[in-house]
Amino acid sequence: MKRKIEVCLSPALLETYAIENSIVVVIDILRATSSMVYGIDNGATAIIPVAQVEECLNYKDHGFLLAAERNGEVVAGYDFGNSPFSYTKEKVGGKTVVLTTTNGTKALHMARARAAEVVIGSFLNLEALSTWLKSENRDVLLLCAGWKDQVNLEDTLFAGAVVQMVRTAFTEFDDSSVLAEDLYQLAQHDLRAYMQKSSHSHRLAALNIEEDVKFCLQLNICEAIPVLRGDALVALK
Amino acid sequence: MKRKIEVCLSPALLETYAIENSIVVVIDILRATSSMVYGIDNGATAIIPVAQVEECLNYKDHGFLLAAERNGEVVAGYDFGNSPFSYTKEKVGGKTVVLTTTNGTKALHMARARAAEVVIGSFLNLEALSTWLKSENRDVLLLCAGWKDQVNLEDTLFAGAVVQMVRTAFTEFDDSSVLAEDLYQLAQHDLRAYMQKSSHSHRLAALNIEEDVKFCLQLNICEAIPVLRGDALVALK
Repeated sequence: MKRKIEVCLSPALLETYAIENSIVVVIDILRATSSMVYGIDNGATAIIPVAQVEECLNYKDHGFLLAAERNGEVVAGYDFGNSPFSYTKEKVGGKTVVLTTTNGTKALHMARARAAEVVIGSFLNLEALSTWLKSENRDVLLLCAGWKDQVNLEDTLFAGAVVQMVRTAFTEFDDSSVLAEDLYQLAQHDLRAYMQKSSHSHRLAALNIEEDVKFCLQLNICEAIPVLRGDALVALK
Repeated sequence: MKRKIEVCLSPALLETYAIENSIVVVIDILRATSSMVYGIDNGATAIIPVAQVEECLNYKDHGFLLAAERNGEVVAGYDFGNSPFSYTKEKVGGKTVVLTTTNGTKALHMARARAAEVVIGSFLNLEALSTWLKSENRDVLLLCAGWKDQVNLEDTLFAGAVVQMVRTAFTEFDDSSVLAEDLYQLAQHDLRAYMQKSSHSHRLAALNIEEDVKFCLQLNICEAIPVLRGDALVALK
């Protein structure tokens, strides 16, 4: 039986893919989807991604936690931003978090409009996600959020990691998935070292999120697979 | 002095790049830009890329050769299509060729609208092009034509080859240029074998252009650098 896996390296390319019957995995490794996975894994009831900082404010006084980040920094007056260290059991357990980020939320909303199913990927849940993807009988699109519609290394590397994990369950691969898998094979022995090559490494260093980067490159510390149900991300099972 | 080289993996991402002061290298390895380089190297006076097959017909009765290809095949009634074997000295020497192709012409026109200078790259003129790029004092964007706005291996590999050749003359590299260069380093010992991994290899085989592919993956058999002057590609020097 034919089954296809593809990698979309930027949200700006999403419309070139037919995803109406596909599972779309949204990937924004630094740091939105890593935080989402960690938050759901730590018992957050739901995480609601919204597009605008202002939209986030509509949820104030509902007892929700508000998280907002623009250009990598916490927006003043919000409970927290995008750092995975904010999404611990103590902080998010049993709570709903309303989240807006630069790139991840945008990719999520674009996928939601067309895909059969939208789930969240990060290195933290690589194995759990891959095992589930293999078990489902659908085509898969790995959607990299990128940085302002440009391709970035970390999202591409994670897409490649998934392709490597699931490839035996698929028969068709687009060129981007070949490229991503080969890049991951090159980088996997030391992801942090490889990430030093990124054009964003100076930007990230300036934002003082090196501990976040280190955290987000850990493999398989979470079992949760966040899935989009209506407006909210919840645990798949 | 700062000098930047970037790789745009699909025309659909071009608007995210500031290219007003840059040299843009248009790349459509299979087969438009390979044929353009080969044709100019073989003494074609000019090659005029047009967007529509119908537009091509406007040039009939001007003594121009007409070349048209859609989805990889010659359009009925035209002098030839996109195969580099049509661009020999005997056929194009001293002539002007009006050309329309699926992806390459589109990328060319998009670049022309904004870039300081637009030139044509292919493996055939890799070294000549790279030497010239190093000698110029401008930022460079390597623009992959891709396939229907999706990323493809051969254009990405060539972009990586250029990055590898010119990197000492540049100080800034975007993530796509890192990715492309690493992919090229992985593939360069046997480009044809690597291209077997392409999702397009079956499509290309079906079109019976394997000899074209072999031809287009040759390195440094041409010295010409086609440059866009007005509506036409001519020899840079």
